[in-house]
Amino acid sequence: MSLKLTILGCHSATPRVNAHPTAQYLEINNRHFLIDCGEGTQRQMRRYKVGFSKINHIFISHLHGDHFFGLIGLIATYGILNREKDLHVFGPKGIKKAIGLQLDVSQSHVRFPLHFHELSAKKSECVFEDEKVRVHTIPLNHRIYTNGYLFVEKEKPRKLNIEVISNYPEIETCDYNNIKAGRDFKLKDGTVLKNEVLTKSPSKLKKYAFCSDTAYKPSISEIIKDADLLYHESTFLSDKEALAKKTKHSTAKQAAIIAREAKVKTLILGHYSSRYPDINLFLEEAKTVFDNVILAEAGKEITA
Amino acid sequence: MSLKLTILGCHSATPRVNAHPTAQYLEINNRHFLIDCGEGTQRQMRRYKVGFSKINHIFISHLHGDHFFGLIGLIATYGILNREKDLHVFGPKGIKKAIGLQLDVSQSHVRFPLHFHELSAKKSECVFEDEKVRVHTIPLNHRIYTNGYLFVEKEKPRKLNIEVISNYPEIETCDYNNIKAGRDFKLKDGTVLKNEVLTKSPSKLKKYAFCSDTAYKPSISEIIKDADLLYHESTFLSDKEALAKKTKHSTAKQAAIIAREAKVKTLILGHYSSRYPDINLFLEEAKTVFDNVILAEAGKEITA
Repeated sequence: MSLKLTILGCHSATPRVNAHPTAQYLEINNRHFLIDCGEGTQRQMRRYKVGFSKINHIFISHLHGDHFFGLIGLIATYGILNREKDLHVFGPKGIKKAIGLQLDVSQSHVRFPLHFHELSAKKSECVFEDEKVRVHTIPLNHRIYTNGYLFVEKEKPRKLNIEVISNYPEIETCDYNNIKAGRDFKLKDGTVLKNEVLTKSPSKLKKYAFCSDTAYKPSISEIIKDADLLYHESTFLSDKEALAKKTKHSTAKQAAIIAREAKVKTLILGHYSSRYPDINLFLEEAKTVFDNVILAEAGKEITA
Repeated sequence: MSLKLTILGCHSATPRVNAHPTAQYLEINNRHFLIDCGEGTQRQMRRYKVGFSKINHIFISHLHGDHFFGLIGLIATYGILNREKDLHVFGPKGIKKAIGLQLDVSQSHVRFPLHFHELSAKKSECVFEDEKVRVHTIPLNHRIYTNGYLFVEKEKPRKLNIEVISNYPEIETCDYNNIKAGRDFKLKDGTVLKNEVLTKSPSKLKKYAFCSDTAYKPSISEIIKDADLLYHESTFLSDKEALAKKTKHSTAKQAAIIAREAKVKTLILGHYSSRYPDINLFLEEAKTVFDNVILAEAGKEITA
């Protein structure tokens, strides 16, 4: 398992007792990311015991309060906890000034390096890349400038073929990293064991696509093609399709059509409007179009 | 009962699963006030079912995050709920710009009149007054400009003396307001019933003093003299008196000395540091100096 998503909050608009605004914790290829940060996210992180201090990169989709108002508190908390590591925040233009002013007035002088990467491009771009993961924006269509994010694993090391290796006592644990890195192994008798014998292909590279908030936008299917997991907002059911269009949100059915067109493996629904007391209705509607659907719920862990 | 305080949060620094930052809901003489608004306050308001829509005045002591980061979310929620009534926010200079910028970047265009009353005086001043209540600042000594607030009932109407009134069937319910307002009543036979016969003295005027955060500051005793309830921060116990002095906080014992000197009826402790796993230690320490002490705890209702 190299992709694990923990839902911290998945409801739209105002926080309520059991309805937390959007936030997700993503572990992918040994990287740990926070996606969106509605009010109360830091409490949810503690509640579900996600790695508070492992996060070095935060991706904010847009600056509506239910995706963003918890960020200042989280950053201030990192300051109080004497964080020293760099923290990178990706989000729409304006985020730096909004957070900076609050840090100023609250005299929360964080001592760690805090980097803002302000986004304004209208086309998908790669905004983060290291040796493990690449992150691309998914430009969405909402009432305010909004990006989803596509998280893509990069090449992984080959896996040791322990069944083969165990036949050669000469190969020691300290040799494993070289073998995983692709090297052959030369035995004392001069025999060369080829790397493709000692290793197996790495597991398939994983992709996670996060899309919230957005009106139905079929063109994103190309960007998120074949994702293992797609989180797509479904604020409304089809009974409110006109309202979805007006407020630039999606219905569960529209989210499912995107999932089908993009040929993703699993669709996760969320960002439910409070007008629906039973979120199973979202599942039922989406399943009329696409089979593999999961409902986001706070605390739920989803692996791929 | 004309004074009722509901504790929404009473812990210092960072929000945790069961430790909510400062916020209080005060009902006094039929007025409803919110005092401080740490992150997650709107959720606590819903959890403890305090009158969300009754609040027209919010008093912020200072702009540290644990007293203030929930304010933007609450204001945005009032906007989403289509509030129309005026909302008044009292707090240190800078609060208007910090909230205004966040409303701008989140495009949370509230349609109700939002008034900021920015404070910068170093001496106690009356910042709010209507026919029921007066509110004065209590200048405190913290690392950042900070005021406590003193809420004082103004003259109340006299109470009907129902035992006397019930002897006169001529007096109808619709006459009660006139009588409570101080008028005599003339019977049909010409007899005049004096108001002091028909009514009893109103109950004593109540006072609530809120003091958080502050270093030990004996001079506030004059301002809060004879308060019915005093909430005074006690971030530390006496074992950390030096740290309290350095960070401009108080110990439980110091809070109790203030309560004793000011001759208040009841002291409420709060703003506990997370270093103390058992908050009963605060109660024990304060009780060595002052008898009538209550521990603030989220959801606790305190009447006077």
